[in-house]
Amino acid sequence: MKRITMIVAMKQEAAPLIEKLGLTETNDINPLLPCKNFAGEYKNLSINLVTNGSDSVHGVENVGTQPATLAAYEALRLLSPDLVINAGTCGGFSDKGCKIGDVYIGERIRFFDRRIPMGEHYEAYGDGNFQCQLAVDLARKLGLPTSIVCTGNSLDMSPTDEAILRQESVVNKEMEAAAIAWVASHYQTPLVAVKSVTDLMDSEHGTAEEFASNLALASGNLQKEVLKLLDLLAQKQATSDV
Amino acid sequence: MKRITMIVAMKQEAAPLIEKLGLTETNDINPLLPCKNFAGEYKNLSINLVTNGSDSVHGVENVGTQPATLAAYEALRLLSPDLVINAGTCGGFSDKGCKIGDVYIGERIRFFDRRIPMGEHYEAYGDGNFQCQLAVDLARKLGLPTSIVCTGNSLDMSPTDEAILRQESVVNKEMEAAAIAWVASHYQTPLVAVKSVTDLMDSEHGTAEEFASNLALASGNLQKEVLKLLDLLAQKQATSDV
Repeated sequence: MKRITMIVAMKQEAAPLIEKLGLTETNDINPLLPCKNFAGEYKNLSINLVTNGSDSVHGVENVGTQPATLAAYEALRLLSPDLVINAGTCGGFSDKGCKIGDVYIGERIRFFDRRIPMGEHYEAYGDGNFQCQLAVDLARKLGLPTSIVCTGNSLDMSPTDEAILRQESVVNKEMEAAAIAWVASHYQTPLVAVKSVTDLMDSEHGTAEEFASNLALASGNLQKEVLKLLDLLAQKQATSDV
Repeated sequence: MKRITMIVAMKQEAAPLIEKLGLTETNDINPLLPCKNFAGEYKNLSINLVTNGSDSVHGVENVGTQPATLAAYEALRLLSPDLVINAGTCGGFSDKGCKIGDVYIGERIRFFDRRIPMGEHYEAYGDGNFQCQLAVDLARKLGLPTSIVCTGNSLDMSPTDEAILRQESVVNKEMEAAAIAWVASHYQTPLVAVKSVTDLMDSEHGTAEEFASNLALASGNLQKEVLKLLDLLAQKQATSDV
């Protein structure tokens, strides 16, 4: 696995990684699209980092599954990576052991806001449930805990959302991973989701408030763990080169 | 407007249109993707119809905003249409005057399940709210009523969803249009959403049950009104050719 593409939703989440890896922006992405591509080398790995980009109307980052679908497709179509890493921030439940700044790797990735009660096949399609065996192996080697990464398009949590999320064990609630997993499945490209906790959904503080105040901390921790993951991948690549 | 691309989520919704227009499947779509393209001529118009395709794991149609994003991008990138028509079925509220089989044109298209309470700009981004002036003009000429097309990834309606949907006047609740509008906005390509009612969210019957039993009727009505729309576009094209 030499060609690694990271997909990171927000520029704030991507900035520590771009800086640490010394990546520079390319001009190979369709210029009509908002997503951006940053490229470079790290040890023996060829690295790309694709962000969802900004919304030109509202001046915010393109969070959510629609921009993630577009960024993932553009990344897979143009860059043909051996592995996709979706690095980002998430919410967690403190009563299930999550703490601000904790970093997890997704053992399974699912949608939690696609309720399609038209029989078991549509229900299963809606939930997604993408298994990530390679990610589990890498988490074990890195000593990182694993989680069920749960994707939906709202930052807040409705009672309906919470009932679904509460059915899972350790939840990382975020807004992109399952869309990326769905696109990557068409390319049979493995996905490792690395998620850093910015907010606790069962705390007394609001999610938006916690998210804003913890984004820099969580993004910093994310960068450190993603770098350890890249070190491990570089080491594996070196062994396979022999 | 000579090059018209229709984006239709499900094969059941597309079948009457494909048959009536005598469209045949092409092989220009990326074969790794599930979406399908059908092409043909109608009067002086060049017609494409792109469906989201089926899910190879669960054997169901790829409904929802992630497949719609992919289909819309592939359609806009490869086919460069002058106009996109998103034809499909939807739910409505009977107490706002919707009846099974009624056909509407969207005057505005918004997401209803992207709640991002991080200030007014993120909230506005989440809701989308794509204005469709050309569609309003065409609806007036066709004598069709207009609606607020509201897009979300669930077929059912949570209390949180209902509270948001109830803020709008005449609602067409469906699962793709806002994602298509968002992609089309990057190409500055106008979008006309044509939606036919399969189910009444405030009836005593379940949405899934009504959807299944009314899908053929609604898809038939959809085909008739889309054909009238194409007739009108052909007439406008003939005038502009003179």
